[in-house]
Amino acid sequence: MSKEIPYKIYLDEKDIPSSWYNMRADMKNKPAPLLNPGTRQPMTAQELSGVFCEELVKQELDETTPYIEIPQEIRDFYKMYRPAPLVRAYCLEKKLGTPAKIYYKFEGNNTSGSHKLNSAIAQAYYAKKQGLKGVTTETGAGQWGTALSMACAYFELDCKVFMVKVSYEQKPFRREVMRTYGASVTPSPSETTEVGRKILAEHPGTTGSLGCAISEAVEVATHNEGYRYVLGSVLNQVLLHQSVIGLEAKAAFDKYGIRPDMIIGCAGGGSNLGGLIAPFMGEKLRGEADYRIIAVEPASCPSFTRGKYAYDFCDTGMICPLAKMYTLGSGFIPAPNHAGGLRFHGMSTTLSQLYHDGYMEAVTAKQTDVFEAAEYFARVEGILPAPESSHAIKVAIDEAKKCKETGEEKTILFGLTGTGYFDLVAYEKFNNGEMDDYIPTDAELEEALSRLP
Amino acid sequence: MSKEIPYKIYLDEKDIPSSWYNMRADMKNKPAPLLNPGTRQPMTAQELSGVFCEELVKQELDETTPYIEIPQEIRDFYKMYRPAPLVRAYCLEKKLGTPAKIYYKFEGNNTSGSHKLNSAIAQAYYAKKQGLKGVTTETGAGQWGTALSMACAYFELDCKVFMVKVSYEQKPFRREVMRTYGASVTPSPSETTEVGRKILAEHPGTTGSLGCAISEAVEVATHNEGYRYVLGSVLNQVLLHQSVIGLEAKAAFDKYGIRPDMIIGCAGGGSNLGGLIAPFMGEKLRGEADYRIIAVEPASCPSFTRGKYAYDFCDTGMICPLAKMYTLGSGFIPAPNHAGGLRFHGMSTTLSQLYHDGYMEAVTAKQTDVFEAAEYFARVEGILPAPESSHAIKVAIDEAKKCKETGEEKTILFGLTGTGYFDLVAYEKFNNGEMDDYIPTDAELEEALSRLP
Repeated sequence: MSKEIPYKIYLDEKDIPSSWYNMRADMKNKPAPLLNPGTRQPMTAQELSGVFCEELVKQELDETTPYIEIPQEIRDFYKMYRPAPLVRAYCLEKKLGTPAKIYYKFEGNNTSGSHKLNSAIAQAYYAKKQGLKGVTTETGAGQWGTALSMACAYFELDCKVFMVKVSYEQKPFRREVMRTYGASVTPSPSETTEVGRKILAEHPGTTGSLGCAISEAVEVATHNEGYRYVLGSVLNQVLLHQSVIGLEAKAAFDKYGIRPDMIIGCAGGGSNLGGLIAPFMGEKLRGEADYRIIAVEPASCPSFTRGKYAYDFCDTGMICPLAKMYTLGSGFIPAPNHAGGLRFHGMSTTLSQLYHDGYMEAVTAKQTDVFEAAEYFARVEGILPAPESSHAIKVAIDEAKKCKETGEEKTILFGLTGTGYFDLVAYEKFNNGEMDDYIPTDAELEEALSRLP
Repeated sequence: MSKEIPYKIYLDEKDIPSSWYNMRADMKNKPAPLLNPGTRQPMTAQELSGVFCEELVKQELDETTPYIEIPQEIRDFYKMYRPAPLVRAYCLEKKLGTPAKIYYKFEGNNTSGSHKLNSAIAQAYYAKKQGLKGVTTETGAGQWGTALSMACAYFELDCKVFMVKVSYEQKPFRREVMRTYGASVTPSPSETTEVGRKILAEHPGTTGSLGCAISEAVEVATHNEGYRYVLGSVLNQVLLHQSVIGLEAKAAFDKYGIRPDMIIGCAGGGSNLGGLIAPFMGEKLRGEADYRIIAVEPASCPSFTRGKYAYDFCDTGMICPLAKMYTLGSGFIPAPNHAGGLRFHGMSTTLSQLYHDGYMEAVTAKQTDVFEAAEYFARVEGILPAPESSHAIKVAIDEAKKCKETGEEKTILFGLTGTGYFDLVAYEKFNNGEMDDYIPTDAELEEALSRLP
């Protein structure tokens, strides 16, 4: 007889994972290496360590170690907000009248409001351990910047955040949380960097982009003694740290002998999706189990579904290494979708390889459909979701409705990456019926892709 | 040997309290009854049921039943966000270098961002059960309005919120969360009510007050078929519902054989404090145990510490019943302190009686000291606290510092009632050094108190 499943499955504190899981160790086709933008040769550890912390460079390049121990200091920090609950969406199931069993792994119960803290604390820890003064980064929607500010406050590291100017102006509260945690926040492009001044000279009045903020943050890290650059998504190291999401979800399922049929996550740079699916993908890669894995991306920024699998720059300034990934071209400027965390032109190299090899599917969702699902979910399950997470909600609801038609009792897991408290301008637009859908034309995509390096 | 105490003590879902605890049953001196503003006679159940739901009137008047069962439908909703964790503030203790053991009961992990949901869902349930169409209420800071909107969305009840105009304008995001949950939100005073029009005529351009919004909400409830008025604090029924906070906290302590030495909570109308202390106060009233219980109020609105224990109106329009409570006078307009939830001129009648009888202490905290404590706490414990809750943090830190001096290993419990995501305008002022402290003069208080009924 199966045990009764509570609304929220919490693991014990002692069951917080003691190691991260590295999907690459089980991949037959490894993700392609980062290339030096000058020589177009694979980046060496030495080259990378000018930009990133040493230990993180090791993790970035490690393709063979399946489990990497989580240092005790990081696990102690995790204890402040983890284990995160695996929630059975009883109320949503009832409202939909579906025989499907819906679960979500909720990562929003911390002040950064998202899963980003899982990697931010790891990156801050290694920076501290290396004896650095501080770190630099960029932030768009602000989730990553907030998470990093919290992590740096904990380890008493200096934190310099370049925030895309349009977000800086539209999201003053995000900026203020970061300041409360002691970070300095500069609107990007700024006059404080060479690359920023160059961009401002070429595009006066620009409101900035993530790619441009990355260029500025990297410049500051490489031009200041005792600083390194840190990034909240895309990189292998980030997916590694985010594997705690999936490891906890799997442990919670195992406690009740449950195996999900499908796993759904939103995908921007891939940090959440890569973390959520990690241990499940591991079983799939090793041929031990099969899962349907679905990436959901915004129709306005469809890297997987309409991009090209090719080497491209990660930043606008073209000073960062090249990555082989599904990309829309580093010159592609996505429409001002409110899911700021999903507005990156590229995608994790690891996820790109897995998608290329057929281990996962990808679908797109339109912005208004996403907010409709978000509001529906908020009213039924009581949590106001982030626009990013709501992409996964939208597809989970669609799949649950299909189960209603077919009568199948499928078990659906999706990632609820964060909360929408700082996204109420977007909700207001939706509530007022003023929200647009924007889908790039084939011609626009072709143009951006024609400029790939 | 004592068990190792985790960072967060979570009860099992089955340990969510099945009954609320009614402190009045164990009080020798019962709180004074509400009086009819016309006749000055105690309000009868019949009179009250024109304003409040029938079952809630029963709870309001019940002075003898110690435990009142929580209906299953409410417990099912509680499961979505409860049990709330009792957190051991290891990081704060370490940072302070105190031998004190600090715990906080965290009620902020739900979309309303505070403990208010505990009573909102109960009040919405009884309204639904009575077959009502909807409810009306007022909100200042917006926590209560958000909580009620969520509760009404769950039970598909109409929800009309009168929001103090200055908050409506300064906190558009609070308004938008309520709209997302389907509530209608009207800035108060408004042209939609008789009392609103009267106030606007007398005070053109006024930015409103809680007392005025109450008057409007009560008018709409009593003039519309199928509507009743609900209130988020002060009332006995609210303290009853909020007892889940204390009951859970006590159960979590009991699991580890811990007994707190002191319990600290912020006090505006008394909903959080009354809930947090309930079972501990019960033991104290029955002579089974002793606890030091400390209410913390803002220096700008010091009902307990500088008010008078007397009958007074709860609203500005003077259409509500009179309550015997510690009050600054219903005409007292507190300075625009950012802890909007603590800006009420009066105090729960139950807590007033307990304070009068010497069962608890009260202290005040200045706004800038409160925000300093808030920021300190945020950086160390990772949670951005609501300004209201930060009053308790401030005094908990003070007490922990005293323990450092004396070497005493006291166990401190405080209520962390909510999060500050919607209070970043206040944090911004603090970060910019633009925050004021305002303490009313004796002359101002005397003037307001001279107009007591």
